[in-house]
Amino acid sequence: MDILIVGAGNMARGIATRFLAGGHPVHIADRDPQKARRLAADLNADATGESLDDGPGDARVVILAVPYPANKEIAAAWRDGLRGKLVVDISNPVDFATFDDLATPVGMSAAEEVAAAAPEARVVKAFNTTFAGNLAGGAPMDVFIAGDDEDAREEIARLASDSGLRPVSVGGLKHARELEGFQLLHMKAQEQIDGRFSTAIGFATV
Amino acid sequence: MDILIVGAGNMARGIATRFLAGGHPVHIADRDPQKARRLAADLNADATGESLDDGPGDARVVILAVPYPANKEIAAAWRDGLRGKLVVDISNPVDFATFDDLATPVGMSAAEEVAAAAPEARVVKAFNTTFAGNLAGGAPMDVFIAGDDEDAREEIARLASDSGLRPVSVGGLKHARELEGFQLLHMKAQEQIDGRFSTAIGFATV
Repeated sequence: MDILIVGAGNMARGIATRFLAGGHPVHIADRDPQKARRLAADLNADATGESLDDGPGDARVVILAVPYPANKEIAAAWRDGLRGKLVVDISNPVDFATFDDLATPVGMSAAEEVAAAAPEARVVKAFNTTFAGNLAGGAPMDVFIAGDDEDAREEIARLASDSGLRPVSVGGLKHARELEGFQLLHMKAQEQIDGRFSTAIGFATV
Repeated sequence: MDILIVGAGNMARGIATRFLAGGHPVHIADRDPQKARRLAADLNADATGESLDDGPGDARVVILAVPYPANKEIAAAWRDGLRGKLVVDISNPVDFATFDDLATPVGMSAAEEVAAAAPEARVVKAFNTTFAGNLAGGAPMDVFIAGDDEDAREEIARLASDSGLRPVSVGGLKHARELEGFQLLHMKAQEQIDGRFSTAIGFATV
C-alpha cells in the first residue's frame, strides 16, 4: 500500500480522483468502513476500503482528508505508526461559529498542530486551497505546498503534477499559517463571487 | 484635492496610473518633493508634486504608498490630520533579512499598526497583492480589500473598479493579516514561477 487517504468525504473523493487519474493507486480509510468501501467502489479503481482501527499500516504517504480537529486527533492516535511517513494535512481550521476567524491559536497552524501530535512524521501542508468539486472535475489548479522536509515537499509536488495540478512550494511548515489564513478569505469571498465554491486561489501571470 | 498618494516609488506610480486611467485625479507627495514632482510630470496628468511637510491637507483619501515601517511612522506623524480620512495601507511588512517571515508581531498586521497610529482615520488594506508593474500595465487583477468601515471599503472598491481592477472585499481590518501573509508567499514564489514579479494572486473560476 503506497497512498492511504484518511476520510471518505468530498475532499477524499476529489484527491483520490485526481491521484487515480495520475496513475497513483490509493486506499481509503474512514471511521465508518462502509463509507470508505462505498467511496472506493464509486471510484471504480484500485482503491479499497479500510477502517481506522488498524492505524496507517504500511502506507508510505498518509493524506489526512478529515476536518480540523479530527486531523490532529488521528495524528495523535497514530503517533507511533506515523513515524517516518509522509503525512499530508489538507485541513482548514475555520471557526464556523463566526466564519470570520481561524480556530487555531494565534501564530499556529493546523498543520503544525498535526506535526506536534506526530513529531516523527514528515508533515506537509497541501490541497487546502483546492475545493473538492474542482479537484474531482480535473481543473488545473495551483497546489500550495509547505513542509520542513524538502524531499517530502518534492514528492507531493510530483503527485500533484502527475495529477494535472500545478505545485507551488512555499517553504517550511510554518507557512501553513498563511495558506490556512488566505483560504479563510477565499471561503468567505464565495458569497460575493458566485456562491458555488467553483473558484481556486492561484498565482496567474497577468 | 481628493486623492493624495504618499510616496513616489513604483507602487505610487502603478496606483496613480490606474486611478488616472479610471478618471480620478491624484496628488503625489514624497519626502523628496523633487521626486514627487518628477513622477507627477511623468504621469502627464492632473497629478501635482507635494512635500510631506504639510501633512495630508484637505485630501479625502490618503494612499500610503511607502514601505513598512514608514507607513506607520507617517500615520503617527499625521495622526491629527488624518482624522476622519480614508487611509489606504498597501504595505507588505516582509522581514528582508530572512525573506521568509513577516516583520510584524505575531497576530498583528501592518494595516492594524497604521490604524493604531492614527486611530481616528478610516483605515483600509488594499493593493498589497498587486505588483507595481502589473498595475502600471493595466492588468485586470483582483484587489483584496479589508477594513472595519464598510463605506470606506466600498469607496476603495469603486476606485479599483473604475480603474479596471476587480475588488474583492474580505471583511474587517484584521484580515489584513491574511492578505499580508499570503503576499509573503507570493513574493517568495516568484523565484520558481518566473522571477519577474509578473503574477497576481487571484480567485479564478476553474
